[in-house]
Amino acid sequence: MRVKLTVAYDGTEYCGWQVQPNGDTVQEEINKALNDLFKGQDIRVCGASRTDAGVHAMGNVAAFDVDTRMPAEKIAYALNERLPRDIVIQQSEEVTEDFHPRFAKTSKTYEYRILNTRFDNPLLSRYTYFYHYPLDVEKMQQAAEYLKGRHDFTSFASVKSQTDSFIRTIYDIQVYRGIPDVFNDIITIQITGDGFLYNMVRIIAGTLIQVGAGMRNAVSVKEALEALDRSQAGPTAPPEGLTLIEIKYQ
Amino acid sequence: MRVKLTVAYDGTEYCGWQVQPNGDTVQEEINKALNDLFKGQDIRVCGASRTDAGVHAMGNVAAFDVDTRMPAEKIAYALNERLPRDIVIQQSEEVTEDFHPRFAKTSKTYEYRILNTRFDNPLLSRYTYFYHYPLDVEKMQQAAEYLKGRHDFTSFASVKSQTDSFIRTIYDIQVYRGIPDVFNDIITIQITGDGFLYNMVRIIAGTLIQVGAGMRNAVSVKEALEALDRSQAGPTAPPEGLTLIEIKYQ
Repeated sequence: MRVKLTVAYDGTEYCGWQVQPNGDTVQEEINKALNDLFKGQDIRVCGASRTDAGVHAMGNVAAFDVDTRMPAEKIAYALNERLPRDIVIQQSEEVTEDFHPRFAKTSKTYEYRILNTRFDNPLLSRYTYFYHYPLDVEKMQQAAEYLKGRHDFTSFASVKSQTDSFIRTIYDIQVYRGIPDVFNDIITIQITGDGFLYNMVRIIAGTLIQVGAGMRNAVSVKEALEALDRSQAGPTAPPEGLTLIEIKYQ
Repeated sequence: MRVKLTVAYDGTEYCGWQVQPNGDTVQEEINKALNDLFKGQDIRVCGASRTDAGVHAMGNVAAFDVDTRMPAEKIAYALNERLPRDIVIQQSEEVTEDFHPRFAKTSKTYEYRILNTRFDNPLLSRYTYFYHYPLDVEKMQQAAEYLKGRHDFTSFASVKSQTDSFIRTIYDIQVYRGIPDVFNDIITIQITGDGFLYNMVRIIAGTLIQVGAGMRNAVSVKEALEALDRSQAGPTAPPEGLTLIEIKYQ
């Protein structure tokens, strides 16, 4: 049967999702746990989102095929006993054989969190980008509006992107300070789209931070988008602020 | 001059606040940073709250004497450059020579956080106690009411407590789920008092969790309090859920 996993992880200690020769990855840890649980089947998971080193996830999605009589929903418990504490399977469920986590149509939601205070907070520093210069959230929201909709996001993709098309659709983007009455020092950029180019969310965050800090104005984001030129957008914000929140399959 | 420091730390990697022969402590790291900054003065900080191994702080308080012309408020920046990333001085200020962080009259606020979900969340596991059995927050709040006020808290102190008196005053104790609309899986026990006995907050948390889980009823907390017998209260909840939020000096 084919099994879909919903995976949460603290990416701090990992070289990203994707198996690679140097350094631990989340995918590798899950493969190890699966092959310990289902011996002799050489199982490999395929992930929906190949998050970068240091990026976190609440709900990345992965799938694998296995020959077992264990009910699919029990696999999460058995894997969690075999995984390090910073990776936790949140759900396991049987899916049809045509389910593919990467090629299916999805909407993905990421949050980029900025700790905008005078001093860093060690209880938040693994999950927020500490930026001490005061940011203007209203301007950031104005700038973010230009990115909504279907566009060619060449300016907001790493020059190392390997892709057939730079066209993506951003369904929604919200910039807000805090959550009602608490964490007023945290600015969250929440962004939902049909997919994101390499480093796209972090480049959007880096650009909106420049707007918030008064280093560029909101309209310059529209101009950067239209220029189709990576050098017109802001820097790639660091990975620790980024969390993949959810992937929804149609 | 005497300098007061407000200190935040992620206690995960430390053997608590207090300098001890085996293992790193927060106090030791601050002493090292101070002696690197002010060479040849053999400075030692005195802390307000000697938090246990694995316990966190947003606002512990420490003080030290130093002979320097550096303005007191700049010391925080200079120390933060010398401290590991999981300890951050939030404020440094000059105080009068009679200020003593431990012997002054204070109110202290702690929060104990419980992640009450089916699976642990790796983005919260450093700062919450994962407890999967569903908890009844209303019952926990009922039980907490019995602890308010001035009492002999012998039942809620470690048998290893070294103290002249077990009398303490709890000004307020609140048990609530989430914060408006978010983090509904986190139950917070917020408790403010004039001081706490050794392990007192963690024993209160362990006892209220038993009430929430239906393992004991709310009135049994009143009975445990009156028994003046440690064995009548619940277990000591683990350290990762506990954060010292604030110390207010009169």
